[in-house]
Amino acid sequence: MITVEEARKLLLGLVSPLDSEDVPLAEAAGRVLAEDAAATRDQPPFAASSMDGYALQSAEVERHAMFKVIGEAAAGHRFTGTVRAGQAVRIFTGAPVPEGANFVVIQEDVKRKGDLITITDDPGTKPNIRPAGADFRVGQTISAPRVLRPEDIALLAAMNRPFVRVYRKPVISLISTGDELVMPGGTPGPDQIIASNTFGLKALFEGKGAHVRLLPIARDTHGSLRTALGLAEGSDLVITIGGASVGDHDLVEDVAADLGMERSFYKVRMRPGKPLMAGRLNGRAMVGLPGNPVSAMVCGYIFVLPMVRRMLGLETDVSFQHATLAESLPANGPREHYMRAMVENGRITAFGDQDSSLLSILAQANALLMRPPNDPALDAGTQVFYVPL
Amino acid sequence: MITVEEARKLLLGLVSPLDSEDVPLAEAAGRVLAEDAAATRDQPPFAASSMDGYALQSAEVERHAMFKVIGEAAAGHRFTGTVRAGQAVRIFTGAPVPEGANFVVIQEDVKRKGDLITITDDPGTKPNIRPAGADFRVGQTISAPRVLRPEDIALLAAMNRPFVRVYRKPVISLISTGDELVMPGGTPGPDQIIASNTFGLKALFEGKGAHVRLLPIARDTHGSLRTALGLAEGSDLVITIGGASVGDHDLVEDVAADLGMERSFYKVRMRPGKPLMAGRLNGRAMVGLPGNPVSAMVCGYIFVLPMVRRMLGLETDVSFQHATLAESLPANGPREHYMRAMVENGRITAFGDQDSSLLSILAQANALLMRPPNDPALDAGTQVFYVPL
Repeated sequence: MITVEEARKLLLGLVSPLDSEDVPLAEAAGRVLAEDAAATRDQPPFAASSMDGYALQSAEVERHAMFKVIGEAAAGHRFTGTVRAGQAVRIFTGAPVPEGANFVVIQEDVKRKGDLITITDDPGTKPNIRPAGADFRVGQTISAPRVLRPEDIALLAAMNRPFVRVYRKPVISLISTGDELVMPGGTPGPDQIIASNTFGLKALFEGKGAHVRLLPIARDTHGSLRTALGLAEGSDLVITIGGASVGDHDLVEDVAADLGMERSFYKVRMRPGKPLMAGRLNGRAMVGLPGNPVSAMVCGYIFVLPMVRRMLGLETDVSFQHATLAESLPANGPREHYMRAMVENGRITAFGDQDSSLLSILAQANALLMRPPNDPALDAGTQVFYVPL
Repeated sequence: MITVEEARKLLLGLVSPLDSEDVPLAEAAGRVLAEDAAATRDQPPFAASSMDGYALQSAEVERHAMFKVIGEAAAGHRFTGTVRAGQAVRIFTGAPVPEGANFVVIQEDVKRKGDLITITDDPGTKPNIRPAGADFRVGQTISAPRVLRPEDIALLAAMNRPFVRVYRKPVISLISTGDELVMPGGTPGPDQIIASNTFGLKALFEGKGAHVRLLPIARDTHGSLRTALGLAEGSDLVITIGGASVGDHDLVEDVAADLGMERSFYKVRMRPGKPLMAGRLNGRAMVGLPGNPVSAMVCGYIFVLPMVRRMLGLETDVSFQHATLAESLPANGPREHYMRAMVENGRITAFGDQDSSLLSILAQANALLMRPPNDPALDAGTQVFYVPL
């Protein structure tokens, strides 16, 4: 059995960054920028007033000075003349500063009577002008790769980038296998349960930027599995769930091998999630996740999300965080253990029952506490690592 | 001018939790559960084997004991007979444990010859059986309200809930105002800039569960603003951006007042974001955000997101986090100041230039460092609060 780290490396070797596509800016949030995006203009494109007031010459600014108001400049409407000695232009926030002026006295420091203003309060030395290009200049870039946040979207808009080059969403096909499974909404027989893994994994992968195809459940026959794998054609990653041990056979592996899969590995020294399988089928990555609901989800976080990130051109390290153990823990066995846990204010507590069938515990957890293989017993107060859920 | 806290209270008073709707489970991730969702069945619905092995009677389990294999139980395919003394049933993970059996000896501890097995290794005392209902029982609930995570989706599937009752998405109409604005992709005149606020805010609000309508830019005329406000009909929240001070008039307020807006407040003791306006127009909440890009986004985080959360039935407190100041900060003025900052490993640094027009600084920031009004100068090492971006 290989280690978690070895498995992750092999899995990452099965996928590559995908090609890119242009999407409209309004749909680019959460997508991954694939090429540096450069500003097509300066912002502001002209020296602009940052306040409402009067634009005039700084040399003339002093208390009790009087000026004649010769015009008005508003956002979108420049004053086309020139401001000369003794003159001022009424100006509003965002308006281009008129020629000749290099200072804006804010309106609160001025008294106006008809066309005349007098500076009544000390206007200070701040000119209240934003120089052209103060925010950014033509050619200034947002660097790829980068998951586009709302702030980036606003900046791309200001840069006048109506379309954005992003990595294509990885297409992942999910196939649940098992005669015991019924889709939610179905009526299970007495020996059956509801298929839950595909729904949880779909939400997980789509939340991280993938597009997920939820394929029909494959029954425990060669024919049914072949049909399902056929429906996965054209996806970047095929994931089967369960079916590793049906009767005395590894059904998924048998069928995949028949179809020409080159196996990369089978079984990882991990808990939950030991019966993980991976390989390449028709040139595409294929992963066989264990069928226990919690094992499937944990493997989704620990193994599949890094693959998604790689396909999206992003860094692939699992981002561990650290917290202080609130309660002691017994020694760990020989497998790397991801324990469902609750972290609050930097303190983490593992749930008592870690049976890999308990989805209810997973839904209460907000962290997977990582125990290295053969980790000794740990006292409360020890620093430990976890993956946030 | 009112305080940030007073403004937030008044804003929250303008909205209420919305009605709810049923959505298919596959589309429920990220939505907010509106009613407790109860399991429609026990999970597992029967005592199930947690391992591959042989089901038999625990009283007979001891090394060297021999059993006759009388049948097989696989996931989805129960063995219908009863296991009696001296008998065993081949069983696989997830299969119902047959009548009469109450222990599963794992296959690694057994030697099989034809129909006979011998226990060759100490099978321990763990029965390797998951009792019926161990994960959850009929009627056990996931409590509302709750933003549904992938783990919840998996659990809801297992509970056989094909549809989920969630809060309807708040519909927010965004109206940029200003003669100076051109949509991304347009060709701005010499006095014009690109509309960026609506795109950033759309991404922000949609990321938090709202549905955003991006309406045409309103020009600085009564007619244009009236048209845009008319297009906002039917939304739960109307947001205008800019236009608070055009020429010598508060254009948005003038038009909104003409249309019958009851004003709640105008101006908040905050930086950036002072010229915030709010009220009720035709029974709906209306917020006028300042036009400076950074001010609009910061007000989106500090004021609008809590309103979105209230409409979604969630808690509305702004969730401040704390970090250690990496560099000293000068005293703050009389307004609560939200400074663009960078937090890394618990240490936070405010950017030097906090001009509210600088989107490029906002896009580099990952936090808004909060300075209370009249906060004294702070030394490096001081604990401060921030809102993550």
